[in-house]
Amino acid sequence: MQQLKDRIRAEGKVLPGNIIKVDGFLNHRVDVALMRKMAREFARLFDLTGITAVLTVEASGIAIASICADEFGVPMVFAKKAKSDNIEGGLYRSDIHSYTYKKDVTLLLSRQWLTGQDKVLIVDDFLANGEALRGLVEIVEQAGSQLIGIGVAVEKGFQPGGKRLRGNGHNLKSLAIIDKADENGIEFREGN
Amino acid sequence: MQQLKDRIRAEGKVLPGNIIKVDGFLNHRVDVALMRKMAREFARLFDLTGITAVLTVEASGIAIASICADEFGVPMVFAKKAKSDNIEGGLYRSDIHSYTYKKDVTLLLSRQWLTGQDKVLIVDDFLANGEALRGLVEIVEQAGSQLIGIGVAVEKGFQPGGKRLRGNGHNLKSLAIIDKADENGIEFREGN
Repeated sequence: MQQLKDRIRAEGKVLPGNIIKVDGFLNHRVDVALMRKMAREFARLFDLTGITAVLTVEASGIAIASICADEFGVPMVFAKKAKSDNIEGGLYRSDIHSYTYKKDVTLLLSRQWLTGQDKVLIVDDFLANGEALRGLVEIVEQAGSQLIGIGVAVEKGFQPGGKRLRGNGHNLKSLAIIDKADENGIEFREGN
Repeated sequence: MQQLKDRIRAEGKVLPGNIIKVDGFLNHRVDVALMRKMAREFARLFDLTGITAVLTVEASGIAIASICADEFGVPMVFAKKAKSDNIEGGLYRSDIHSYTYKKDVTLLLSRQWLTGQDKVLIVDDFLANGEALRGLVEIVEQAGSQLIGIGVAVEKGFQPGGKRLRGNGHNLKSLAIIDKADENGIEFREGN
């Protein structure tokens, strides 16, 4: 999506350790008008026939997922992050590793809000190692819901998450894939 | 707001310890169509002339704040929660106590995304002890931004947050104020 790539190039900052900061429009200050355009792009890229919910994980994914849900006319459901010793009943759960926080976390979702009757699109703002998305896919599988696909705003293509998810047969679409980010600037994947 | 009160009465669950669960439409599964109506109600209740941003705090506040920002045509900014030993530069910070998680947390917001030029509406889904909102007000003060007011979806009127914020002169509007919640049901404040 050209407009997103232009924004990343204009405002994104590359920090040591291949960290790409886009917190002026994506995940701290959020440009909801841009989110709306991304939601429309997802509607073009995925067959949303029969969709019943947009699924994401707290925290920053909630912004883009809320606008997508609004655009598609369905509710938004978000998994919560808990410490892995926090066990409760009536929940789907998936244990993942958070590279951002350098610890294991458990994604939790109440069984009430996703069932075998649901058809969902998973949405998130960022994809790097793909642990959060792997966890969300696992929750969709536990619920027996139908998975339309996975829509991501920004994918760090030089980290393994995207390759893994596509390798597992998931219909993953990222609106901007960054293949290189260093002191010389940002390179996007061709044809994306 | 009658529609919100009807939903709380129909779907809300009162758990021991005066916990009110409304996670089927407000803060786990999110009814974004209801969020849109709440955003329009805030637009009626507050004078939004010159507004430049909607401010909230992660995580569940991001949903309602995103829809409000979309409705008002401005960006949404959310404060992040960090452990209180996490000190970084270039940030506004406010130390609060989280009664939900029974620990002290620090709200952090990058100085870039709120300045003396901003005029903001603070929005959150829930108000009980009011610590998160007190922290957001402190951040607005640190930024030198103009505060239009504080819009809350559900206020637990039997807990002290709302009284304190109003006592400090803040223009707080809650769309539903619950004055009593026990095994006999839910009572809303008259005239609200």
